[in-house]
Amino acid sequence: MSSERIAKEANLAFSTLKTLSNEERSNALQIIHDSLKEKKTNILKANELDLKNAESQNLSSSLIKRLDLSKSGKFDSMLQGIFDVANLPDPVGKVTLAKKLDEGLNLYRVTAPIGVLLIIFESRPEVIANITALAVKSGNSAILKGGKESFQTFKIMSEIVNQALAKTKVPPKAIQLIESREDVSDLLNQDKYIDLVIPRGSNELVRHIKSNTKIPVLGHADGICSIYVDSNYDLTKAKRIIIDSKTNYPAGCNAVEQLLINKNLPKEEIKEILQSLIDNKVTIHVTPELKLIDSEFVKDVVDDSFDKEYLSFDISVKLVNNIDEAISHINEHSSKHTECIITEDEAKANKFLKSIDSAGIYWNASTRFADGFRYGFGTEVGISTNKIHARGPMVISLENM
Amino acid sequence: MSSERIAKEANLAFSTLKTLSNEERSNALQIIHDSLKEKKTNILKANELDLKNAESQNLSSSLIKRLDLSKSGKFDSMLQGIFDVANLPDPVGKVTLAKKLDEGLNLYRVTAPIGVLLIIFESRPEVIANITALAVKSGNSAILKGGKESFQTFKIMSEIVNQALAKTKVPPKAIQLIESREDVSDLLNQDKYIDLVIPRGSNELVRHIKSNTKIPVLGHADGICSIYVDSNYDLTKAKRIIIDSKTNYPAGCNAVEQLLINKNLPKEEIKEILQSLIDNKVTIHVTPELKLIDSEFVKDVVDDSFDKEYLSFDISVKLVNNIDEAISHINEHSSKHTECIITEDEAKANKFLKSIDSAGIYWNASTRFADGFRYGFGTEVGISTNKIHARGPMVISLENM
Repeated sequence: MSSERIAKEANLAFSTLKTLSNEERSNALQIIHDSLKEKKTNILKANELDLKNAESQNLSSSLIKRLDLSKSGKFDSMLQGIFDVANLPDPVGKVTLAKKLDEGLNLYRVTAPIGVLLIIFESRPEVIANITALAVKSGNSAILKGGKESFQTFKIMSEIVNQALAKTKVPPKAIQLIESREDVSDLLNQDKYIDLVIPRGSNELVRHIKSNTKIPVLGHADGICSIYVDSNYDLTKAKRIIIDSKTNYPAGCNAVEQLLINKNLPKEEIKEILQSLIDNKVTIHVTPELKLIDSEFVKDVVDDSFDKEYLSFDISVKLVNNIDEAISHINEHSSKHTECIITEDEAKANKFLKSIDSAGIYWNASTRFADGFRYGFGTEVGISTNKIHARGPMVISLENM
Repeated sequence: MSSERIAKEANLAFSTLKTLSNEERSNALQIIHDSLKEKKTNILKANELDLKNAESQNLSSSLIKRLDLSKSGKFDSMLQGIFDVANLPDPVGKVTLAKKLDEGLNLYRVTAPIGVLLIIFESRPEVIANITALAVKSGNSAILKGGKESFQTFKIMSEIVNQALAKTKVPPKAIQLIESREDVSDLLNQDKYIDLVIPRGSNELVRHIKSNTKIPVLGHADGICSIYVDSNYDLTKAKRIIIDSKTNYPAGCNAVEQLLINKNLPKEEIKEILQSLIDNKVTIHVTPELKLIDSEFVKDVVDDSFDKEYLSFDISVKLVNNIDEAISHINEHSSKHTECIITEDEAKANKFLKSIDSAGIYWNASTRFADGFRYGFGTEVGISTNKIHARGPMVISLENM
């Protein structure tokens, strides 16, 4: 099927989907849930094919682990996730502003679905259930493109989803799976029918998509997060926040990549912070005056050390004269994702919170908190660093809509 | 000065401007107000030059009227506008969501300025005061490009504004005026420093800008608004709404361009609706079955009659079988700006409101109400038909922020 036809049919399905009631949408999710449950054996069989294929291609063990749908209750929690979304309050038709402009003239601002979403994601096959649930619940059509590693699993799951939808009021074309990479480039031209692209993958993928489409793209390429340690601070707190921000999950976009330390900190305390990083097997890339420790974990900064997303157990560290220098450095070098100040001085904290131009700005908290689920918003679909209009973790449900 | 430098300096000014208090920003507006008031004679002298120039070039009388700053209290109401904006509540730093995530872990969502705005507008010179006030009040830098017809007036006003800002905490480079058309194309490449383009001009201008920049563009090209007259309706109400929507200001983007009439209306009533348009000097472009009146104001529809923004005393009219056909027609042909249903049947109204995919959807109200000021939001900067994320009239103040 041509990309134009896929997009056009998704758009047509949307015009029906957007008129359905919450009950009708939630009921469709119930039926999808039941169908996937019933066909569990078939799905796991297809998943086994993907796993064998991945092993024969010597793919990394972490990728294989993500592919595997049979382990540790993954399948059941995928099913539970569909239920949870079905039971959320209706995100559509919520009145967010009501005004009487004149006698008999009333203005309402009402939440509405977006339209057609194009979602490109990685190898985890349970995402298809997840995204399907969120899309249907929020009244949006979705075109899904998964990684080729999980092709067999995706294929059978999408067939089951489509057969299930045929029994509901939701048009089956509201959820479409596409297979090849070529389809994606063509779909990126369908700005007449597609309203939003959500890429969930590498920075390169996101950057490539952003520069090859007129459709708005939700998300961010880099996550270069910074922490500034002020002179009026608590050492124990600082160490805990820095270690958590760096080591809890270094591959996350909300992991810290840069550490700016006020030069007025006692040298011994600076050393203690650096040592705690080294003790946690973090390689510190430091400016010359910070070469205080003799260790294989200490390296010199290079030209791009402060414009780099490591996504590993690495961090760039430098001294700054004061909070103003820290703010300027961050506004110039950060990717405007999430930044943190560590200080006991409320005035300085407020200055930092007000001066930094990033989606999330923290005072004495790990950058790892930048997550829609941790914010209590529901299932996260991405973190936006766009400024027009949504910024920060975005979800398709609950109170931030 | 190069476009890159203009944009970079605006961005640098923003990093200071965003840290200022509401008092400091409002105080700057007070000083701008006083300076413009003091230099009224000089400004009107420059405005006279523009007017003479326009007359010598035989520009249209409506353009000359818009240029003229000396008439009917325009200058004083411009000054008053600055005051009004200065006295608005602070739009920056408003907490729009507060959540306790855990003991000692609090989440706040806080309004923040956008950054650097590039605003391209028409010949009305008072807009410079207007935009300056809104930008400074909301903590945004602005780069302004006015029409060449009002060059002399813009020039002196921007000098006065910059001299005034030099006496305040707002960096003068927060408001910059640029002069030539070339500068604009270069500025459209400065996506590193500019966050939003607001074009206020012809559809061609908006379309040109949208296809020549990576910077988000606020606004819409076409305003193809529709009215559907349902079979269960009030004839008097229908005539009032249709006439107001078409004739109140046909050049407005919120004027109606298409009329869809349910075919079950009595023929005499259809005729009465059409006659009322003709009585108001509106040329009706009708499908063959609607050629009910012999008049020079009746024309045949042509191929693009239902994909056209007339911006004049013209309207396309056709019959539809039912509300479903009206909805499909609108979702296919409208520019997703504003549409209206005329009906006394609440269920049909709700169906229409739920099924149409436009920024504004009205039940028994003139499409001319699509306006930020009429919505009670404050001074309008544009109407967005973007779906990600703001949609409908946008303003830089008050309660919808």
